[in-house]
Amino acid sequence: TALSLSLAAGAVANDDLQSMASDAKNWVMPTGDYANTRYSKLNKINKDNVKNLQVAWTFSTGVLRGHEGGPLIIGDVMYVHAPFPNTVYALDLNNDGKILWKYEPKQDPNVIGIMCCDTVNRGVAYGDGKIFLYQADTTLVALDAKTGEVAWSVKNGSTVDGSTGESGTSAPMVVKDKVIVGISGGEFGVRGHLTAYNVSDGKQAWRAYSMGSDEEMLIDPEKTTHLGKPVGTDSSTKTWEGDQWKIGGGTTWGWYSYDPELNLIYYGTGNPSTWNPSQRPGDNRWSMTIMARDADTGMAKWLYQMTPHDEWDYDGVNEMILADGIEIEGQPRDVLVHFDRNGFAYTLDRDTGELLVAKKYDPAVNWATEVVMDKNSDQYGRPQVVDKYSTDKNGEDVNTTGVCPAALGTKDQQPAAYSPKTKLFYVPTNHVCMDYEPYRVSYTAGQLYVGATLSMYPAPDSHGGMGNFIAWDAAKGEIVWSKPEQFSVWSGALATDGDIVFYGTLEGYLKAIDKDGNELYKFKTPSGIIGNVTTYEHDGKQYVAVLSGVGGWAGIGLAAGLTKSTEGLGAVGGYASLSDYTALGGQLTVFTVPDQ
Amino acid sequence: TALSLSLAAGAVANDDLQSMASDAKNWVMPTGDYANTRYSKLNKINKDNVKNLQVAWTFSTGVLRGHEGGPLIIGDVMYVHAPFPNTVYALDLNNDGKILWKYEPKQDPNVIGIMCCDTVNRGVAYGDGKIFLYQADTTLVALDAKTGEVAWSVKNGSTVDGSTGESGTSAPMVVKDKVIVGISGGEFGVRGHLTAYNVSDGKQAWRAYSMGSDEEMLIDPEKTTHLGKPVGTDSSTKTWEGDQWKIGGGTTWGWYSYDPELNLIYYGTGNPSTWNPSQRPGDNRWSMTIMARDADTGMAKWLYQMTPHDEWDYDGVNEMILADGIEIEGQPRDVLVHFDRNGFAYTLDRDTGELLVAKKYDPAVNWATEVVMDKNSDQYGRPQVVDKYSTDKNGEDVNTTGVCPAALGTKDQQPAAYSPKTKLFYVPTNHVCMDYEPYRVSYTAGQLYVGATLSMYPAPDSHGGMGNFIAWDAAKGEIVWSKPEQFSVWSGALATDGDIVFYGTLEGYLKAIDKDGNELYKFKTPSGIIGNVTTYEHDGKQYVAVLSGVGGWAGIGLAAGLTKSTEGLGAVGGYASLSDYTALGGQLTVFTVPDQ
Ligand SMILES: O=C(O)c1cc(C(=O)O)c2c(n1)C(=O)C(=O)c1cc(C(=O)O)[nH]c1-2
Ligand SMILES: O=C(O)c1cc(C(=O)O)c2c(n1)C(=O)C(=O)c1cc(C(=O)O)[nH]c1-2
Repeated sequence: TALSLSLAAGAVANDDLQSMASDAKNWVMPTGDYANTRYSKLNKINKDNVKNLQVAWTFSTGVLRGHEGGPLIIGDVMYVHAPFPNTVYALDLNNDGKILWKYEPKQDPNVIGIMCCDTVNRGVAYGDGKIFLYQADTTLVALDAKTGEVAWSVKNGSTVDGSTGESGTSAPMVVKDKVIVGISGGEFGVRGHLTAYNVSDGKQAWRAYSMGSDEEMLIDPEKTTHLGKPVGTDSSTKTWEGDQWKIGGGTTWGWYSYDPELNLIYYGTGNPSTWNPSQRPGDNRWSMTIMARDADTGMAKWLYQMTPHDEWDYDGVNEMILADGIEIEGQPRDVLVHFDRNGFAYTLDRDTGELLVAKKYDPAVNWATEVVMDKNSDQYGRPQVVDKYSTDKNGEDVNTTGVCPAALGTKDQQPAAYSPKTKLFYVPTNHVCMDYEPYRVSYTAGQLYVGATLSMYPAPDSHGGMGNFIAWDAAKGEIVWSKPEQFSVWSGALATDGDIVFYGTLEGYLKAIDKDGNELYKFKTPSGIIGNVTTYEHDGKQYVAVLSGVGGWAGIGLAAGLTKSTEGLGAVGGYASLSDYTALGGQLTVFTVPDQ
Repeated sequence: TALSLSLAAGAVANDDLQSMASDAKNWVMPTGDYANTRYSKLNKINKDNVKNLQVAWTFSTGVLRGHEGGPLIIGDVMYVHAPFPNTVYALDLNNDGKILWKYEPKQDPNVIGIMCCDTVNRGVAYGDGKIFLYQADTTLVALDAKTGEVAWSVKNGSTVDGSTGESGTSAPMVVKDKVIVGISGGEFGVRGHLTAYNVSDGKQAWRAYSMGSDEEMLIDPEKTTHLGKPVGTDSSTKTWEGDQWKIGGGTTWGWYSYDPELNLIYYGTGNPSTWNPSQRPGDNRWSMTIMARDADTGMAKWLYQMTPHDEWDYDGVNEMILADGIEIEGQPRDVLVHFDRNGFAYTLDRDTGELLVAKKYDPAVNWATEVVMDKNSDQYGRPQVVDKYSTDKNGEDVNTTGVCPAALGTKDQQPAAYSPKTKLFYVPTNHVCMDYEPYRVSYTAGQLYVGATLSMYPAPDSHGGMGNFIAWDAAKGEIVWSKPEQFSVWSGALATDGDIVFYGTLEGYLKAIDKDGNELYKFKTPSGIIGNVTTYEHDGKQYVAVLSGVGGWAGIGLAAGLTKSTEGLGAVGGYASLSDYTALGGQLTVFTVPDQ
């Protein structure tokens, strides 16, 4: 099996991973592939037979609350993870999902209190014969993939008891001999960083902060570029008042991509903290920034800040999808496509960081008119903020109303998919607006450091729902079609060579649509879906798997039992009616078509 | 719809219930019908097409641990209940299970600590336009079936804070204008009783204790009979030493049946407490007894004690199945059939309590050689205990080994089904033996009052598994066929006019077998099944529904996170390998055959 092959291969884990990932029967990384396309070459399940999709088997994780991410499938084994307490199961695909091993870490439950947006975990990674679990308490643990035994374990966060508000939710990524992890806690004044550990022994290889000195940020003032120009000395600290950058956010809790040829890792940084913009004048670099870093050294090659001086919590952490040969002005370009929380979708040259396209992917977006594309403008690359929606201009203790999108963005962490066949991006989106009232807040380590009261509601004067599932042309920067959904689509999409796209809904439906957005199949799973749809082949049959378990930021009301509308950082009110459709859960549902 | 019809009918709830139950499209009582047959006249899903069974939709209850019982289906609405905290949902069958209302009681979580065998609940009852929920804390609450609003609520247990160890797990039964509930706590020295409340206002109508004075027991010394003879004065207290009967157990946590023609309610009483038999010399009447009581007054017509002076915890609470025209010695008899924990299956005339058949339904049963059937013998009706397996004779602090069945019986609360078509009973059984070491224990209100250390294991020299699913001929007292299972079958069976029988397994499989026990279909649900399989028809299609959620006594290790083999009153060790197959859950899975 693929697993034993890889176990033999040893240290050069990435070669294995690349070849294992190129075998569409497996699903070896949380993101499917390094490019984060979430595209599968499997086509035994396709637009003609998907209507016959059936549930093949199911598995309960034994954990409630938000289940993000999806299982890994490596050879005959499926690895399933769960939110806090982050139980991991190895299931035997040859034996109806019999449990080969189970790992249940003991964690201080106090970490639950410092997780901003539910006790989620976006999945485990595989490499070098090990399964890497990044726990809520920021412990990164390497488990023997065959036995579940702990090979090594390291604490990524700075304190043992979570008292600085650091937590872990993101899925690690294995690149060559390293495993990469981020950090959460932007709502607690955590200063973000991305860290690489050796897969073999857990020794730290490099760490790159999101803000701070050039040394700490692994920035070369001469060589690291922003929109084609070297960033210069102290590019980060210069854009902050005093020491605010030390508690400045820019956490790294989203997805990571990797281009093996360029040897670059891509990811985005989160909101500057606090959410009260008056407390942090300046551009607050490098929060809200796409980073391209050398995989071996962590050195930044280029970066691009999407939302300078954020006033709306538009974290820049959403996935970077690497697509080849996208035709821009007649030229095929190898690009990075990013659907930002701020409602703009960006297409950049992924080698140079050149900004190619920046367009709204929801017409409701109103906080900015455009991103300036004129290279000669002093506004080049900057969104043009509409005064009315500037929570900074309106000031502290003033309720800025009708801002679109809401803080959870036109899209949050729920990953989109890209089909090289249609050259289209399939994007789960939010169609939600907000009122945002900043207030002065003082910092106490380990305490919530938000400084704004929010409420959220469906985008006004639209279809009444809180989401759309759209197809996007990243060359033109255009919505190709848009399928309205009652709630935000908080699940990750999957596109396949069978000419279908899958996604889940917060009510709990798994849906399959054709490339024009027509619904071909839907099934009501036990709980709301915020997991990412996965596919694999076993014993000659294609399967589709998805985790149910309502939660995440959108589902925080249900997940944490909150009912006041401004609770859950403002998300509770908008999604209140979700409780008419679903209840907490934690289940894997595996589908197949009987005759393939 | 049926629901609105019944809402109109008002007080004579039982007429509704009977006619509603006779419409096989509904499933209006936890037991399916008053006779507890769990037989459905539906046959659109049948032995020929059941292989095409598919999952139609699913629903997570938002609660983990053991999910016993099953949903009610009344017209277009399905009512789903959950273990502690006993959430109840009304789901709209016309709208993919959309939640019409949800009721989530607030209960003192301390009750969890006084539930012997997991935080289970066996289901809600319907009558008079109300849904009756019997909570863990012994609150009986009547909810408006349409809105979920509380109509009335009454506390069945004697104290408010559970400090006497009283709890509730059983499903209520509505009979005419009354709703009947039992009580749990035999492991806490609770004295059992059955209580009737008015459906209209929750006023107590009658209460019958399982032991005590004739008045408290609602026994008429002249008219109430035991094996054909009046019981005489003080039939209960006479068989106890001192006041031990006041903490004597005999709880009533199982199932209730009703014969509308005889107007008799049938149920069984649980173990005498403590489990240490040396502390309670005598027959310990009327623990371990089948009771036939007048539905209006509660007066006992007849009773029959199966296990006098219990030495093994063989609670007599298993369901009484009412079957008509069973031919005994050439005569068709209207009987009551009862598969007791003690390993004997009893057939009695349900009008007179005459003992017709008493035979072992597992050849492994060894604690008694037989039940004496000679009416002239002074041993008439009594099991003949084998000295070697007498924990009383062997005495305190002596480990009596190799007793079959184990304390959880050849069958526990998991209900059997009866098909009037085949005249056979389909019985989920345990194939488990035990070591039992009694020790002296003193009583403290609200504290565990068990006085024995147990360990359990598969019946030796057999197929190695811990269960069988059997077909039983109650006229002859013979096993017709027996299908081995790896674990005890802790789920309730369902027989249908489609010539199939359904049951669930602790690993989580829903299975369909034909009348000869051949497996026609199996499907792995999210978690181990200890729920009871239910069927209904909606919009012209037959459905099969079952709750998953491993737990109950057999699954207590998983449910409560216990690992020491003698924990969980001895069940943890025997079922330890269950964790290789399943994890905690709480899901409803609804199946159908697409082309019917
Ligand atoms: O700033 C942070 O550190 C941080 C962390 C997380 C997280 O780790 O889940 C979220 C966010 N921010 C956030 O802004 C956000 O919208 C969000 C949504 C979710 C989710 O899983 O649904 N997590 C997070
Ligand atoms: O004596 C009692 O009051 C009492 C209560 C219960 C219960 O209420 O669940 C069980 C038992 N005993 C018992 O003996 C037993 O085997 C048992 C199994 C289960 C279960 O749900 O799996 N409950 C109970």
